[in-house]
Amino acid sequence: MTSIPRLLILALLLLAALPAGAQDKPIAIAIHGGAGTILPGQMTEETEVAYREKMTEALRAGYAILNEGGSSVDAVVAAVQVLEESPLFNAGRGAVLTSEGTAELDASIMEGEQRMAGAVAGVKQVKSPIELARRVMEASPHVMLAGEGAEFFALDQSLEMVDNDYFITDRRMEQLRRMQRAEEDDKHGTVGAVALDGSGNLAAATSTGGMSNKKFGRVGDSPIIGAGTYADNETAAVSATGHGEYFIRGVVAYDIAAMMRYADLTLSEAANAVIHERLTDMGGTGGVIAMDAGGNISMPFNTAGMYRGYIDTSGELHVAIYGD
Amino acid sequence: MTSIPRLLILALLLLAALPAGAQDKPIAIAIHGGAGTILPGQMTEETEVAYREKMTEALRAGYAILNEGGSSVDAVVAAVQVLEESPLFNAGRGAVLTSEGTAELDASIMEGEQRMAGAVAGVKQVKSPIELARRVMEASPHVMLAGEGAEFFALDQSLEMVDNDYFITDRRMEQLRRMQRAEEDDKHGTVGAVALDGSGNLAAATSTGGMSNKKFGRVGDSPIIGAGTYADNETAAVSATGHGEYFIRGVVAYDIAAMMRYADLTLSEAANAVIHERLTDMGGTGGVIAMDAGGNISMPFNTAGMYRGYIDTSGELHVAIYGD
Repeated sequence: MTSIPRLLILALLLLAALPAGAQDKPIAIAIHGGAGTILPGQMTEETEVAYREKMTEALRAGYAILNEGGSSVDAVVAAVQVLEESPLFNAGRGAVLTSEGTAELDASIMEGEQRMAGAVAGVKQVKSPIELARRVMEASPHVMLAGEGAEFFALDQSLEMVDNDYFITDRRMEQLRRMQRAEEDDKHGTVGAVALDGSGNLAAATSTGGMSNKKFGRVGDSPIIGAGTYADNETAAVSATGHGEYFIRGVVAYDIAAMMRYADLTLSEAANAVIHERLTDMGGTGGVIAMDAGGNISMPFNTAGMYRGYIDTSGELHVAIYGD
Repeated sequence: MTSIPRLLILALLLLAALPAGAQDKPIAIAIHGGAGTILPGQMTEETEVAYREKMTEALRAGYAILNEGGSSVDAVVAAVQVLEESPLFNAGRGAVLTSEGTAELDASIMEGEQRMAGAVAGVKQVKSPIELARRVMEASPHVMLAGEGAEFFALDQSLEMVDNDYFITDRRMEQLRRMQRAEEDDKHGTVGAVALDGSGNLAAATSTGGMSNKKFGRVGDSPIIGAGTYADNETAAVSATGHGEYFIRGVVAYDIAAMMRYADLTLSEAANAVIHERLTDMGGTGGVIAMDAGGNISMPFNTAGMYRGYIDTSGELHVAIYGD
């Protein structure tokens, strides 16, 4: 045996051992944990550190998947699940409560290659609403399931079910009481993630408890494809957070993609125009995280703050809470 | 008393007697009653006449309101209610049935001046889902209510409630049985209306029973603002019908408005591009009715037929069922 085939075999073995994601293709992930009246000095330093650590954990969970060659769908689900499981954020455990004192959860997901999508609204017993949205996308002929029908499908899919109490924290119960006494009106919050994988595919995911003190049955923008979530490899992946009614009326997530597609704007130009002009002109408040197929990231918001972070294509991690 | 004041008074009286809409401002209305595999010869002549008469009745009901100076919101609700009350169409009475044999109704409405919107999903006992959607728009802080929460709001609004049996016709029960035996797959259908009033305001409304044999809890595009319904005076009012999952993923109704706004297409160019290119390329089937602020009308569909009709700005009435 000459040395040439041996070198060739060695090279092939090395190539095969490389994870698919560890190639030159850019990968990136961004998350948000809600926008609102978030000002420096409002929370203790310990709480702020807890938020930053949890966002970092979510980013690293998603990024690890991308880095191992996993899909952007897997990455956004993993990142969102870290935030769903944390009582700090208004999604999954720690969701805000309806006027009846129950948790009603909404979530949606979309992938940018085929533009497949899944969404659930008003679920009360599914531990991970974003996982259920993903199952709707992948294992049902439908895009959106609501209420009991969604729970029924979750059982059919053998997803982990929990008692509604699982989602309810003392902090949210106290927040509901303050709101019902009209002592508090900062009632929004949502979590979300967007990611680009090594195959060049974008994905976006959003999960929420909705508005505190909402009427039961109220559906916000988070489970609405086009409003709270959108992804298309040709334009952008977007996850939104804010006063959902305005995001529905403004078709905010898709509007960013439409501006890129039809008016030839860059990701940053489109995302800023939609939040700081179109949404603001309507009187709506909130923000988005958006990513294009080059892994560029834009995270505009018109509120005082937005829990947010990213690991960009150079691998740099950044988390932030307040406005610039 | 000289003759001049008498003439002046006479002129003022005549002016006051004129309905506000009977001025030079254009008014127009268009409706649809669902798209699908609708081919000549499939239905009896009597049935075809019944469809044409009911569409004519719906158009005249909406147009009469516009002609008397009423709003486009009133007009689209009136037109849609005629179709909801008819067992011929898949909305209200005569809606298709879920796999459980129940009727679950969805509807949405949007007005083009302020871009206010209302939507309901999965209601089972509200006689007029489109009226409930309108109440959500006008009398709640929310855009979308689903399931029991929507019914609760309907009671609060003193809307007429009916037993679920009201919606169920022998024809739809037999259709469900045929579908469950896989003998029929033409399972779509929706009704909708778009209108322009004498004040220059557009509105769009959509109402449906969804897909026959659907999983209970499935939400289609009809109650999704941006997908099944959209209105903005600066671009267009749109109501869609077809395979809802594709209309959600394609954000079809808003996409027409976005193409007009950002790519400077005319109503007809945008509506045709969205249906015959964007939707068709995704594999989606269905159609839209669309109207701009000049009262221009476009009604493209990529199915064999679409129940449709309009009364245009010249007052001419036209109804059609099959492809050209």
